[in-house]
This record gives sequence, C-alpha cells and structure tokens, in this order.
Amino acid sequence: MSVNGARGGARERLVVIGGDAAGMSAASQARRLRGPDELEIVAFERGHFSSFSACGIPYWVGGDVSGRDELIARTPEEHRARGIDLRMRTEVTGIDVEGGRVRARNADTGDAYWTPYDKLVIATGARPVRPPLPGVDAPGVHGVQTLDDGQALLDTMARTRGRRAVVVGAGYIGVEMAEAMINRGYEVTVVNRGSEPMSTLDPDMGRLVHGAMEGLGITMVNGAEVTGLPTGDDGRVRAVATADGEYPADVVVLGIGVRPETGLAAAAGLPLGAHGGLLTDRAMRVRGHGNIWAGGDCVEVLDLVSGQERYVPLGTHANKHGQVIGANVGGGYATFPGVVGTAVSKVCDLEIARTGLRERDALRAGLRFVTVTVESTSRAGYYPGASPMTVKMLAELRTGRLLGVQIVGREGAGKRVDIAAVALTAGMTVEAMTALDLGYAPPFSPVWDPVLVAARKSTAAVRAAEA
Amino acid sequence: MSVNGARGGARERLVVIGGDAAGMSAASQARRLRGPDELEIVAFERGHFSSFSACGIPYWVGGDVSGRDELIARTPEEHRARGIDLRMRTEVTGIDVEGGRVRARNADTGDAYWTPYDKLVIATGARPVRPPLPGVDAPGVHGVQTLDDGQALLDTMARTRGRRAVVVGAGYIGVEMAEAMINRGYEVTVVNRGSEPMSTLDPDMGRLVHGAMEGLGITMVNGAEVTGLPTGDDGRVRAVATADGEYPADVVVLGIGVRPETGLAAAAGLPLGAHGGLLTDRAMRVRGHGNIWAGGDCVEVLDLVSGQERYVPLGTHANKHGQVIGANVGGGYATFPGVVGTAVSKVCDLEIARTGLRERDALRAGLRFVTVTVESTSRAGYYPGASPMTVKMLAELRTGRLLGVQIVGREGAGKRVDIAAVALTAGMTVEAMTALDLGYAPPFSPVWDPVLVAARKSTAAVRAAEA
Repeated sequence: MSVNGARGGARERLVVIGGDAAGMSAASQARRLRGPDELEIVAFERGHFSSFSACGIPYWVGGDVSGRDELIARTPEEHRARGIDLRMRTEVTGIDVEGGRVRARNADTGDAYWTPYDKLVIATGARPVRPPLPGVDAPGVHGVQTLDDGQALLDTMARTRGRRAVVVGAGYIGVEMAEAMINRGYEVTVVNRGSEPMSTLDPDMGRLVHGAMEGLGITMVNGAEVTGLPTGDDGRVRAVATADGEYPADVVVLGIGVRPETGLAAAAGLPLGAHGGLLTDRAMRVRGHGNIWAGGDCVEVLDLVSGQERYVPLGTHANKHGQVIGANVGGGYATFPGVVGTAVSKVCDLEIARTGLRERDALRAGLRFVTVTVESTSRAGYYPGASPMTVKMLAELRTGRLLGVQIVGREGAGKRVDIAAVALTAGMTVEAMTALDLGYAPPFSPVWDPVLVAARKSTAAVRAAEA
Repeated sequence: MSVNGARGGARERLVVIGGDAAGMSAASQARRLRGPDELEIVAFERGHFSSFSACGIPYWVGGDVSGRDELIARTPEEHRARGIDLRMRTEVTGIDVEGGRVRARNADTGDAYWTPYDKLVIATGARPVRPPLPGVDAPGVHGVQTLDDGQALLDTMARTRGRRAVVVGAGYIGVEMAEAMINRGYEVTVVNRGSEPMSTLDPDMGRLVHGAMEGLGITMVNGAEVTGLPTGDDGRVRAVATADGEYPADVVVLGIGVRPETGLAAAAGLPLGAHGGLLTDRAMRVRGHGNIWAGGDCVEVLDLVSGQERYVPLGTHANKHGQVIGANVGGGYATFPGVVGTAVSKVCDLEIARTGLRERDALRAGLRFVTVTVESTSRAGYYPGASPMTVKMLAELRTGRLLGVQIVGREGAGKRVDIAAVALTAGMTVEAMTALDLGYAPPFSPVWDPVLVAARKSTAAVRAAEA
C-alpha cells in the first residue's frame, strides 16, 4: 500500500490525525461499517501510545491502578490487526485543505511525506497549560497529560527522598493528583489561584471541598498566583513561589488545565471558536468543510443549557464524538447534540459532581434564576452508612426550568448528578422533577431522594420569586 | 373541640383515614398551608404507630437498624404538636359519602362515633397477602408489614433456639427478609412460586438474582406452591410444605406481597380499579368526588409507559401523594403525573433495580419491542472495585422509545436505574440516550456508562429490526 499514491478509484482514504480516544473511536467505528476494500484508514499519532485513558493517570500515580498498560484500551498492534494503518511517533505538521492532503514526519526516522485524503478526521486533543514561569521546566516539575508524563512523575517519586508535594491547580486534575500524592504518603499542599478549589463549582460548594481536603491533611492555599518555581543548587525544583510566600516542594505537579491543540487547524484556516477549539456541526463535521470532521479535546461543543459553545475536554465526550464521526465517515448517520456539562470527581471519599450551569454561567447566558441548597443523606437516615450530601440547584425564573445542579458528599453523591443531567437534557422544570420516580429503598436513598428535595425547594423558590 | 359538632362557618374540617406516609404527609402539608384557625385536621390511625418506614423493617429485623424508634419519622405527639388531632388505635369503620362523615371506633375504649368532614383523605394503605393455608396463623409464622409485626418476629427469634428460617415469597420483601435472616445467622430457605426470584424482573434477569442468592448460602426453591404450614405438637410452625416436599422451619416469614386496603372505600361506593385500588385523578382526588382524595398504598397509579393503571405500593409514592394531596387540600395546586415503575433493592451486596416495562408488561400494553442485555462494569475496568453489572433494556420498535431497564450488579448498580427512570419520564428514545452527558471518571463509571452501552446496542437492535 502506497501512502503517497494518488487518490482515485472506488476505494476512499480516510486520514485520522491523533491516535487517542476520538480519533481511534472514529477509525474503529468507520472500519466496522466499511471494510478495507472500500475504505483505507491511515492514522497518525505523534506519541508512544494509542487509545489510553488520560483520566486514569492520577489513579496509576496514586497506586490504585497497578501499571501503565492497564490504562491502554487498545494497542497500536490491535488497531493494525483491525485494518487501521496506525503510524506511531508520526506527527502531522501541516494540513493542505485545498490539496486534500496532510504532511507528516516520523520522529524516529525523520522521514517527512504528504498523504492525500478523501476524508479527514482531526483529533489532535489538548495540550496542558504550562505557564512561562521561571523554573517550570526544571527537574521535579511534572504535568500529567500523557502516559509518558505519568511515568516521568513516578520515576521522580522513586528517585526523590523528600515527601513534600505541591500541586498547582485545584480543578479535577489538581484534586485527583492531591489524592494520589496523599495515597503515596506525601505531605501535600495545593496552590490554587481561585478563591476555593473546584472552580467548576460555585464558590459556596467549592468551600465544602476545601474543608474536606483540609480534613484529609492537605494544606490548601487559595487565591494564590504562582510566580515561579525556585530551583536548588542541583537545578531541581525546591519550592513553589507565590506573591505571599514559598511552599517547599520535593515534587511539583501541574494540574492547571488544558487548551485545545488546534495549531494545525488554525494554520489550515479551519474555523475556531472563542475558546480556541474547532467548530463543528451536529454531525461533528468542521463547519464549512464537507470532508473534514473533528472531535475530542480539540473541539468546542454546544452547551444545551446556555445555547453557547463551551470547551469541555473529557474522555467520555471524545469517545462519543469518535463514534458519531465514525458512523458518518462510514456512510451511516449519527449526531452529537451537545453537552449539559456533567462532571464528577473525588478526592479520597469525598465525591464532587456538577451538571448544567453555575451561577456565573447562568448570568453570562443572560438567564435569571433562583438557587437553593439542601442538606440530605445518601441513604435513609436510619440506615448504616447514611452520609451527608449537599445539593445545590439552579432553576430559571418564570419557566422553572432546571439550569444546574452541584453535589458534594460521600458515597453515592457523585453519580446522583446523572438524574439532573438527564433532566437537563430533557428540558425539565424543577416542578416536573419533584414527581420523578427514582429508585427508593433505605440502603439507597431517603424516601425523598436528595435531588428531589432540592427540586421541591426550587419549585417553592421559583413560586416565591414570582409572588 | 367537639368532633361530633356540625360543620359550618369558615373553618373547614379535614378528616384523614390512616396515620402513615400518605395520610400524615397530606395532613402536614395542608397544615403548612392553612393554620388551625382555617382548617381543623382530624386523623385516625388504627395501629400503634404513625409515620413509620415499613421499608425499613427488614433492616431492623436484620440488625442493621438498632431499634424500632429509628423507623418512626414522626410520633403522634409530634403530629399533635403541629396542630393535627391524630387519634391512635382508632379505626374508621365506615364512610358515609352522602352525609359527609366517617364512623370511627377506639380499640381501647370501645367508643364509636361519627365525625363529619368537609374534605376527606383516604390513606388506608395495604394489607399483606395471607393465603388461607393450614397453619398460616400458627406461632412462628410472621408477616413484616407493621412495626408490631417486626417486633413479634424479633420476639420469636429471641425465644427460638432453632436457626432454620423459611421465607415464603421472593419479591422485594422476600429477598430483603432473606438477607435479614442471613445477617442474623439463620440457615435460610426461600420458597417461591415463580420460576425465578424477583418476578418484577424478567426471568432471565431474575436468574442472576437466583444465582447470587445461592452464592450467599440461601437455598432457593422456585416454582413451588406452598400447600400448608405444618405445626408441631406444641402448635408452633415446624415446616413449610409444598407439593414436592417439606422445608423444616423454626421461623417462617411471609413476604408474599400486599393488596390495597380498600374495603371501606368499596363499601362506600368509591371507584376501584382492576387491581382493587382506588382510582384518582391527577390531583389525587377520588374520581367523581370533589372533596375526597386518596393516596399511598390504597390507590392505583398511572403507568406513564404503558398508559394503564398499576398497583405500586411504595413509600416513596405515598409520600409524594401526601404532598400533592396536602397542597390541594390546603388551597394550593399540585399533581401527581404517574409512575414509570422504578424499584431498587438489594440482597447483601447484590443490587437489583428495574424501571419501566418488563417483556410481559410491554406485550400486555400492546407494544412491540427489541431487548438487549449487556455486561459492563460499575467503574473503569482498571479501577479497583470495578464490579460486573448486567443491564437489560427494552425499546419500542419503529419509534425507538425506551420502554424499560433492569439492572443486576454490585455496588453502584442500583441507583443507575434513575438514569433510565428520568429518560422514561421524558419519553426519550434509546438513540437520544446514547448522547446523554452522564458523569464520568474512572472511580464512578467506564468511559461508556453501562446504561449508555445498553442504549447503543438497543439503537442498533431497533435499526436491525426495521431492516
């Protein structure tokens, strides 16, 4: 098979840029629908690994997952065995949209070549934010985006005697990495720019996370801008510096978030949104381009609650995008309608979940709303293991439409957010939610599920606001 | 206050029959909306307890809940302190609809009297099925419907040396009581008429429960009709007899189910449905009667999926009914739209859940459908504690509308049914469900939640059935 050959005949060539969740899901689904005699599939991955779970890295670092290979859903060899020409360590360096071809370069051999495509899938993912701070590239400073990052951090931990870890950032990755380092026996400090951890929650709910993390022995430094990562005489990082002081560190983990990796797409003139992600239609086709699709962490998605584009890099969306793209590329039909912004995380036994809009999101979307916060329990109060749960709910004024839910609690809190995620998708009012027929038995829920209690109070609040 | 006094003036009298979940929720909610100067509330309860959690009895008997009082949400004194004239041990023996009055009799004093009402709430609950078998009333045979029943069973257990328990029935109460008796160190045999336990599931899913119960050391006897409860020389039960043999028993627990307690209502000429429950409108008003409401275990409810009435005695519905009735009686407005048939239970660490229609329900409703069954895990496969989960899904032919979901698994399986419960309420198609934005992180779910995997396979099955 010549990859430099001209396009032609009945056999089409699909080129996929990026060998992780979105790209390889698309390739696999397309292959299921169309055999190698109809569709040639060439996929480029610049890294060492394909189809791995980046979300699993904190649990590997923390020791809950025994090895790197457990995080790999499908190896390059497995993809190749299914008739996908996956080229590892090969970075696409340019997209020629007019010419219908991509230029790629093998990092090991240095070979560079053009590959024509009939259909193109861009799944270039995200890159971690790495602020241009003094010391950010010093030994002992680690990101946790790729399996190589995870291995490098574990290697540093094995080599370093000191047990002081500083985590920069208190979003999902930050709190998960704080848990990982606690599990490994580190003294952990989290340095966070926001007023409370988990800025994906409203601050009043983030405060609950703050308190729980301190209860776990984690030192929380909020409202702190990192100014540098001072190094010692050996060149290794020795602290995290902020305007207010220095936090000694033997290991520093950066968990500041990610941005869409869309340099290639931008250079090719493809449409980007306000958050820097590619813009697609419902079929995940790049807007204005009939034969280019994009999905995963490099695209923006429609927020079904606000009606605006958001950037939500999450493996679960990437997999869905890949499925939809693969169906369409393979001659079928599927769409990705958008997201409601559901996310769930935990730090030790504290579960943290959200869906829909926070207060600031609702304001930005031009919505007026009421909020209620209720305290309830995960099980019937008399049943052993019943643990407290706080549910915050936002509902639109007048219509009473559910706008968002945030939950902080212990066992059983996190996945309860799914109730609200489905209700948001269906456009339910909080009053309609009060009648939801949810599973009840004493080991599973109080007779009024905490989400229903919040819906009842929200219904009353909407009415009171009208009066 | 004279309860025999004539009705009149601006102050109305609300009479409530039944002092448990539905009745007392209605009374409490009405009281919140209207003070004692506007609304007099008289409630009659024939038993010793008000507002208790019948669902909690198996966990009290099993020792998870330390005492009876924990199951009482609100005592008679607490209700009285809120201005509700709750009369315990006082059974209503007749309803005079035309005269607008009820006749009641105090079991302790023998006093009988008429009480006029302006508004009446019937919340007479359910009575356990107690087949007219030889020996059914012998010492050592126990139901578990009331707190008195639970205490009597515990007393028998304390007095009896033998450790062989036979549970008759393998529905929710049966499996929960089997767990309770296992927890108390009994050798447990479950004698069940159906081909598999949990007839609220399809038999293929019930089979999973069967296997798991045997794995717990429970002897399962399926397809067995009980013919009698032989007693010993001391008059106590000594076995459960079926056509095929006898199962020695030191204690027998009847968990055969309940029927609506509607003798009073029937005698008063109020409308009953095919299942023997009262028929109401959406505001929980008895059909054809402007000033009589009914709720809880004595009514039938609309099944939103089949469009037909069902009998679903569950504390969670009773509480909602009470809330709706109380709002309407108190001069507000609320409705109970119906149920989708959600139920969740567990036997030791096996979680069992269902919502919507089983195969036989769908056939009875005139629906044609596809079914799929998928095996998945509760968490990412690589995350510790990931446990297997089986999800069965029914979807309507042509429309692809979700019709029902059944889940059997371990930790995290049961409440996942809520996703489907909300989707059923919203009338979602299985294809729309594939895009649901559910909470994902490795400790909570695989990247494709088991319910989404089932939705994907169902979507494909609906398409395949069309082709």
